Amino acid sequence: MHVAIIGAGLAGLTAAKQCQAQGHHVTVYEKSRGVSGRMCTRQTEFGGFDFGAQYFTATSDRFKKEVNDWRKLGWIAAWDSQLASISHGKTTSSKAGAKGPQRYVPIPGMNALGKQLAHGLDVRLEQQVIALSRHGEQWLLSVKSDEVPVPATAGPFDAVLLAIPAEQAAVLLKGHASFASTVAGVHMQPCWALMLAFQNPLNLAYDGAWVEDSRLAWIARDTSKPEHRAGERWVCHASAAWSTEHLEDDHERVKEKLVKAFHEATGSPVQAIHAEAHRWRFSLADQPLEQSHLWDAKEKIGVCGDWFEAGLEGGGKVENAFLSGLALSTELA
Amino acid sequence: MHVAIIGAGLAGLTAAKQCQAQGHHVTVYEKSRGVSGRMCTRQTEFGGFDFGAQYFTATSDRFKKEVNDWRKLGWIAAWDSQLASISHGKTTSSKAGAKGPQRYVPIPGMNALGKQLAHGLDVRLEQQVIALSRHGEQWLLSVKSDEVPVPATAGPFDAVLLAIPAEQAAVLLKGHASFASTVAGVHMQPCWALMLAFQNPLNLAYDGAWVEDSRLAWIARDTSKPEHRAGERWVCHASAAWSTEHLEDDHERVKEKLVKAFHEATGSPVQAIHAEAHRWRFSLADQPLEQSHLWDAKEKIGVCGDWFEAGLEGGGKVENAFLSGLALSTELA
Repeated sequence: MHVAIIGAGLAGLTAAKQCQAQGHHVTVYEKSRGVSGRMCTRQTEFGGFDFGAQYFTATSDRFKKEVNDWRKLGWIAAWDSQLASISHGKTTSSKAGAKGPQRYVPIPGMNALGKQLAHGLDVRLEQQVIALSRHGEQWLLSVKSDEVPVPATAGPFDAVLLAIPAEQAAVLLKGHASFASTVAGVHMQPCWALMLAFQNPLNLAYDGAWVEDSRLAWIARDTSKPEHRAGERWVCHASAAWSTEHLEDDHERVKEKLVKAFHEATGSPVQAIHAEAHRWRFSLADQPLEQSHLWDAKEKIGVCGDWFEAGLEGGGKVENAFLSGLALSTELA
Repeated sequence: MHVAIIGAGLAGLTAAKQCQAQGHHVTVYEKSRGVSGRMCTRQTEFGGFDFGAQYFTATSDRFKKEVNDWRKLGWIAAWDSQLASISHGKTTSSKAGAKGPQRYVPIPGMNALGKQLAHGLDVRLEQQVIALSRHGEQWLLSVKSDEVPVPATAGPFDAVLLAIPAEQAAVLLKGHASFASTVAGVHMQPCWALMLAFQNPLNLAYDGAWVEDSRLAWIARDTSKPEHRAGERWVCHASAAWSTEHLEDDHERVKEKLVKAFHEATGSPVQAIHAEAHRWRFSLADQPLEQSHLWDAKEKIGVCGDWFEAGLEGGGKVENAFLSGLALSTELA
């Protein structure tokens, strides 16, 4: 069976690898320049910033097994981090005995995992699928790229798997698939991210912290992660509420406000030598769907992603993306 | 198409990945406990020994591209080694300006590459295929494992690709395939390998050396390879002539003789704290076949391996195995 997979984040790559193992001919379309989706790393002269997903944990047996394989292959490593909570400027470090679940990160940067998984897959980068159309019992894709002025037609494919944020999937699914309205009902929250590089160590007592009563919700010292380039780099995520409120603000203004929030939260007055903001228009679903994926067996079209709970409590995690992609691919087994 | 691949060395893994990418359902059978074939590493309390293939180079554009991908993924690294020639106890170091082609090794050990390539493949370890039989237009495999007392039947498969030494392939091909007699005519030479660990550095002036007029033909300091565990470990390969002559000698006797040859070649009297010998019954073909692979389109059975020249000068290299496996898989494209 010829299968098109749209989106090369972890859900899409997982579905692609599994479909390939099941004997299907798989083509992955990805609109951006690299694989890994929100498990991304931005390279700068000061080193890389994991400015999307921060780390991951494993709770299900299936994902634990996968994580164990990835670890053995040297693709990921444990992030033995000192995490804290910051509330009203008061920092509470996690107690040694209550450090929470084992956290992992791909090495040497978040996007490395997707690169490993993409080996052996036919991934078409910078190819944005802008429309789907039926062609008898099959599917045709309308694909936009910078190379050619008009969209090209790709296919026919026997099945199409979407592994992109709900809002983007909803656009493609309009008029197709029994579950289109379910997808259209999912809202993914935005998230403003701030990347900071410092000349010298800030010597804060933690590697990462959840922040309350602030524009920021999370800050992490990227350079505390294993095999990440040395230096003092921090990634900060604004809260969903603040990000939503300031969604259309310009980058410079957002950057200034979040830098100020970083100083307030950490109590450090040291100025960064590099600062940039990135807007995630779609980060986490506010209400993830309970199921593991959606599938229309008649039209052979499905959707997966971290906005499905897939047996976990809540969504939005790397593990959701993996389990959802895997579950969707079994529809083609 | 359901494809069975016999042998999980580099040729088999390459063919398997490529067949999978072409949309086939692939199952790999491997008689030993791990993947990678002769690109192997033996773990000991003193560290690992790359006791089969020593390193690899890339001359063809296709393999250069692959090597570049592997390097970017962190699977291999350049081995910037100081190599020498030893003749009658006289050592000639390679000149700086004539260091030869870039050499690469998988990290942290030779068998790591196969492990990376095997991710996402269905590899059945410790499953030895002992016979092939026709089943209409398809193939059945008779598979022996330690788990069950009698061979099991696997299949049916639409195609079978053999990626094992010529002598072993010849046994399975008897009575099948138009090219069976060609395979039966290929002879692979044996090679006795010696692994040595020392308490302290020997401080020899080279990381590896070709040896003439000795029982040994090659010695290499495993611990000079990038990201290999520290220590002082050497791997030695006896010459084809000596290995053939002493093929049926017992391990202890061979070990003593090769240890003596190591002392003579290096001029170092230091005793090893660990020594073991391994016999490769099939190492390199004395006369590799000129073509890239053999394929019987009617019976859908083929064979590949490093004993095919596949466009290179001579055989026996990692690059031969890769190009041969790739070429065979295109028969199923």
